[in-house]
Amino acid sequence: MIIVMDSEATPSEIDNVIAEAESNGWQTHLSGSSGNVVIGLQGHGQPLDLFKMGQMPGVRETMSITQKFKLASRAFSPEDTVFNVRDVPVGGKKIIVIAGPCSVESREQILETAHAVKEAGATMLRGGAYKPRTSPYSFQGLGEAGLKLLAEAREATGLPIVTEVMSPTKVALVAVYADVLQIGARNMQNYDLLNAVGLAQKPVLLKRGMSATLEDLLMAAEYVLRHGNTQVMLCERGVRTFDNKYARNTFDINAFPLLKELSHLPVIADPSHGIGVRRHVQPIALSSVAAGADGLIIEAHPDPEKAVSDGPQSLTLPQFATLMGKVRTMATAVGRES
Amino acid sequence: MIIVMDSEATPSEIDNVIAEAESNGWQTHLSGSSGNVVIGLQGHGQPLDLFKMGQMPGVRETMSITQKFKLASRAFSPEDTVFNVRDVPVGGKKIIVIAGPCSVESREQILETAHAVKEAGATMLRGGAYKPRTSPYSFQGLGEAGLKLLAEAREATGLPIVTEVMSPTKVALVAVYADVLQIGARNMQNYDLLNAVGLAQKPVLLKRGMSATLEDLLMAAEYVLRHGNTQVMLCERGVRTFDNKYARNTFDINAFPLLKELSHLPVIADPSHGIGVRRHVQPIALSSVAAGADGLIIEAHPDPEKAVSDGPQSLTLPQFATLMGKVRTMATAVGRES
Amino acid sequence: MIIVMDSEATPSEIDNVIAEAESNGWQTHLSGSSGNVVIGLQGHGQPLDLFKMGQMPGVRETMSITQKFKLASRAFSPEDTVFNVRDVPVGGKKIIVIAGPCSVESREQILETAHAVKEAGATMLRGGAYKPRTSPYSFQGLGEAGLKLLAEAREATGLPIVTEVMSPTKVALVAVYADVLQIGARNMQNYDLLNAVGLAQKPVLLKRGMSATLEDLLMAAEYVLRHGNTQVMLCERGVRTFDNKYARNTFDINAFPLLKELSHLPVIADPSHGIGVRRHVQPIALSSVAAGADGLIIEAHPDPEKAVSDGPQSLTLPQFATLMGKVRTMATAVGRES
Amino acid sequence: MIIVMDSEATPSEIDNVIAEAESNGWQTHLSGSSGNVVIGLQGHGQPLDLFKMGQMPGVRETMSITQKFKLASRAFSPEDTVFNVRDVPVGGKKIIVIAGPCSVESREQILETAHAVKEAGATMLRGGAYKPRTSPYSFQGLGEAGLKLLAEAREATGLPIVTEVMSPTKVALVAVYADVLQIGARNMQNYDLLNAVGLAQKPVLLKRGMSATLEDLLMAAEYVLRHGNTQVMLCERGVRTFDNKYARNTFDINAFPLLKELSHLPVIADPSHGIGVRRHVQPIALSSVAAGADGLIIEAHPDPEKAVSDGPQSLTLPQFATLMGKVRTMATAVGRES
Repeated sequence: MIIVMDSEATPSEIDNVIAEAESNGWQTHLSGSSGNVVIGLQGHGQPLDLFKMGQMPGVRETMSITQKFKLASRAFSPEDTVFNVRDVPVGGKKIIVIAGPCSVESREQILETAHAVKEAGATMLRGGAYKPRTSPYSFQGLGEAGLKLLAEAREATGLPIVTEVMSPTKVALVAVYADVLQIGARNMQNYDLLNAVGLAQKPVLLKRGMSATLEDLLMAAEYVLRHGNTQVMLCERGVRTFDNKYARNTFDINAFPLLKELSHLPVIADPSHGIGVRRHVQPIALSSVAAGADGLIIEAHPDPEKAVSDGPQSLTLPQFATLMGKVRTMATAVGRES
Repeated sequence: MIIVMDSEATPSEIDNVIAEAESNGWQTHLSGSSGNVVIGLQGHGQPLDLFKMGQMPGVRETMSITQKFKLASRAFSPEDTVFNVRDVPVGGKKIIVIAGPCSVESREQILETAHAVKEAGATMLRGGAYKPRTSPYSFQGLGEAGLKLLAEAREATGLPIVTEVMSPTKVALVAVYADVLQIGARNMQNYDLLNAVGLAQKPVLLKRGMSATLEDLLMAAEYVLRHGNTQVMLCERGVRTFDNKYARNTFDINAFPLLKELSHLPVIADPSHGIGVRRHVQPIALSSVAAGADGLIIEAHPDPEKAVSDGPQSLTLPQFATLMGKVRTMATAVGRES
Repeated sequence: MIIVMDSEATPSEIDNVIAEAESNGWQTHLSGSSGNVVIGLQGHGQPLDLFKMGQMPGVRETMSITQKFKLASRAFSPEDTVFNVRDVPVGGKKIIVIAGPCSVESREQILETAHAVKEAGATMLRGGAYKPRTSPYSFQGLGEAGLKLLAEAREATGLPIVTEVMSPTKVALVAVYADVLQIGARNMQNYDLLNAVGLAQKPVLLKRGMSATLEDLLMAAEYVLRHGNTQVMLCERGVRTFDNKYARNTFDINAFPLLKELSHLPVIADPSHGIGVRRHVQPIALSSVAAGADGLIIEAHPDPEKAVSDGPQSLTLPQFATLMGKVRTMATAVGRES
Repeated sequence: MIIVMDSEATPSEIDNVIAEAESNGWQTHLSGSSGNVVIGLQGHGQPLDLFKMGQMPGVRETMSITQKFKLASRAFSPEDTVFNVRDVPVGGKKIIVIAGPCSVESREQILETAHAVKEAGATMLRGGAYKPRTSPYSFQGLGEAGLKLLAEAREATGLPIVTEVMSPTKVALVAVYADVLQIGARNMQNYDLLNAVGLAQKPVLLKRGMSATLEDLLMAAEYVLRHGNTQVMLCERGVRTFDNKYARNTFDINAFPLLKELSHLPVIADPSHGIGVRRHVQPIALSSVAAGADGLIIEAHPDPEKAVSDGPQSLTLPQFATLMGKVRTMATAVGRES
């Protein structure tokens, strides 16, 4: 950390800052700039809070030199992290595509979808058994029955299963059935849940919160990684801004080159939530691949008009097959595979 | 719900919309406006999703007539909800003041704070035993030992205790010690947790999420209320916007008149997080009372420079006493008591 | 417009609303939904303000059926607008690429850039002679001398010129030299300026304001279009959100499919401002083409380290040539040309 | 400025940064922190762009020590700026109240309003003759005829006149009639206009743009101040965020203590736009005074239901009189006068 003192800071104010730093195990080094004393911290002291140091009398500004996220950082692991979900490599040259309905609704629905998306080229199956809903009066998911249907669909197609877990009390149960534990946007800073999925040692799909910064997202990943669970996919799904008249969210396309530079973890795009309108999912999916996404998660349903949730943004199964063709062309155009 | 069809909608598109509504138990009533067919739904059918209906072919726009929140709405309960936390009435004429440190750090710290804020006129004691922290490497709270210290401070001063619970697995434990269960901003849409505190039948302080709309906040309250637990305080603590250079958050002062109109629940202001800078907490606290807040939650600490968390926004104990004097003057000026 | 009355609205409140509508030349048609009276307006009355009608006693909600923008709307002109800037067709199958420095700095700089971007395949030349700067102490542009250098570069290369005009008093002057008048993001709602460029009957590049909704952008275009000047390019250049630590703006990729659906006007992407970091301009440029952009505007400079403005986001000339190769591949992948 | 190099920066990268700084007239001073070289600039060189320096190879971070705004800063002028508009002191102990309709509509309307607000205790009259409207099809103001009516109202009541000017070409004309030139939110970064009102040497009311940071607002003021025109009032009128369902804007109450600390200029609150709903204007006005505002600007109209613009947020004249009584009580409560 570097601490810049006000030009009018008193010697005792400067001494207090030095004392605070040294009492936390840091060595200090003084220099100057434009009439301000500059205090550089060196060595391996206790972490100090930037904002807190910045409020000490006589301090003008503080600057952290090191990034707050460590295990998630590119500096920690310069090579891209690649891991397998069953036999599907994630984070490598191949663009993965996770597809399926928002909610598991019935045996027929999930099996029909699984076969169709497999046929079209999807590499994993998604489906919600526990659904976080804004309204307590909305459908909350089939629960364990839904998990069993997902497992049956995996048996039938070989596709690994991605499904959301909402509570630390359910992690053990969901981990029995799922190949990838999904953390939803609303739970991105549910730290007990992050710790629980970290401990579960299962692959995790971590969705960005709707007003989470990229740094917040990487700090959330840090909660999982510090348990030795490095199988984490980051997922951009759109953020909340001032304009939501024509789209549900603002899809942050900048997140792809930025996250790929900041971190070694695979980055997945969720264009279904990112724009929220079925007929526009395809261009956003393609632009994600063009921007550097390592994979896509796409909502698809045999009959979106009858879906219990997220119907308006779900593709029909033929639309999904069409999209897969375009994704292959796009992957080639940017030197990837699919 | 009202559904407006495009002026070019075909008869079969109109029929499909009518069929969809009627298959969900609604009666339909057709009229027109500017060349568009308008379909009004009547009766008591199943809830329909606005966005989903809006995506049906031929539909131009949809409008909900009823609000999504029910038990939290002013229409459901026209009178202000007033309830007691021990002997402190919340939601009445008197402005309540909840004060204390961000984190419980030691027996001395919490007892000294409790006595001082009681002396200055505070009506409840706050303090965190379980802390949601952006970084897994930061102090995470004393846990149950912290709860015990809070209980001891209550014994010593008579002040009811407000403390955060972060996980459904901890609700039963925290409820043994706390008088009010606090839900933090990051957990506002942690639905399993909301259900758990709803079932606990204890008073709840529900903080607004950092990008939650007022409607989102009221829908989160709905999760608690539907378990018959009507002792809910809503809490404005600032939202995240494009400007955070000089303040941590943007404090949404409009929330006070709006929430008081939309809902019967008490509304509490958290100026400490709302602006995040100690020397500015007082004007934001006073403006909250002027805008209609029913209470304040204020961070205060015997030695904020040494606080393990949120030091920069914590008042010293003498500053808190000064604030209380100003709050009394302000309460009188707007026809309240304190 | 459709007006929904409260279920408790009194007959006289309903009468007042009807009277207000009819006094503005509308016919009214009453129906009902869930116990609420619904008033539909028909015919060709004076425009009414939605928010104003919504505040009349007894009114619950109001809904506009028609979009506020007219001349810019897809309904007004179902076919894509295509127009020529000199011999460059804009809005057609071919992706246009406008390239050049942020500011015109010298004869050598602009001529070297013009030749290089022409060589690499750019179709127009950009360069600022009048610069809107946040600080009055920053470089404000070369003014008319800069315009003359741009004209000289056009003579030398044949590339049409795009340059910004900041004030209605300067429109006539800039129009003498420029082929396209650029309206900057800060001036998107400078209505006197919009009227002036509308009257100038020159092609316009209209940049989206940093917190403008898509509807705001289309309403700004409306100011130009109503003067009979239909040569308008809409330009997405990133919006302001809560996260700007690693990128200057949040680039709204959703704007491309949405604007192409809402409007018949060409839509241009500005990835240089959209992400603001040189090494990430390429993926954002490519993703824009994948999402449906009709063209790109790219900052390029012979020596970005020495640029007087926007150096960090300007490509070097070899980087620009590399980008053009990738753009061609991408255009082919999505069925366009370049 | 302080520049922190990467821990892996090469000696030649460090040399390049030093050379760049010294070639701009700065002396450099090297020190270290946690293995990073830290370069402090000293003396009086040319301004350097933070973001640009930050993109030089080997640079990790840069930090400005001095604020970008100078003439507007509290450091430049430690005492509060107080100036007179006719005989009304602005920026002193007394809370000023500017009241009147959004638009001047007729002689009767403006005279009736002027007399009523004067009677109730207002200190200036507002009214728009040139109106910036999102739609080109909306009422655009009476123009010079409106200015003449405002001047007549001033003759009749003695109240100074505040009115908006939208274009540099109109500044001279508006300055003939107005006592205070208002810059609207949409024009806050219209630099030609800011320069023109700076040169006019008339008092200016500068509204914050809807997504302007506090720093942006102060930089806009800088454009006026550098012409020697120090009669500038800053005006908070609400910013644009993700929630606008129940209020037009999010009123940034934090702006009052922050701007009063950062700057010596008077700060005015516009609660009418800040919340946008007539029945909630009063609590927001009172909270602004509680937070430290030096004045209020309030929309009031003899018959808001018939107002051509902003009717829903305009107070009736009796409502305004009631508000003035409350403002007096509030001013006393916070040690101000009105």
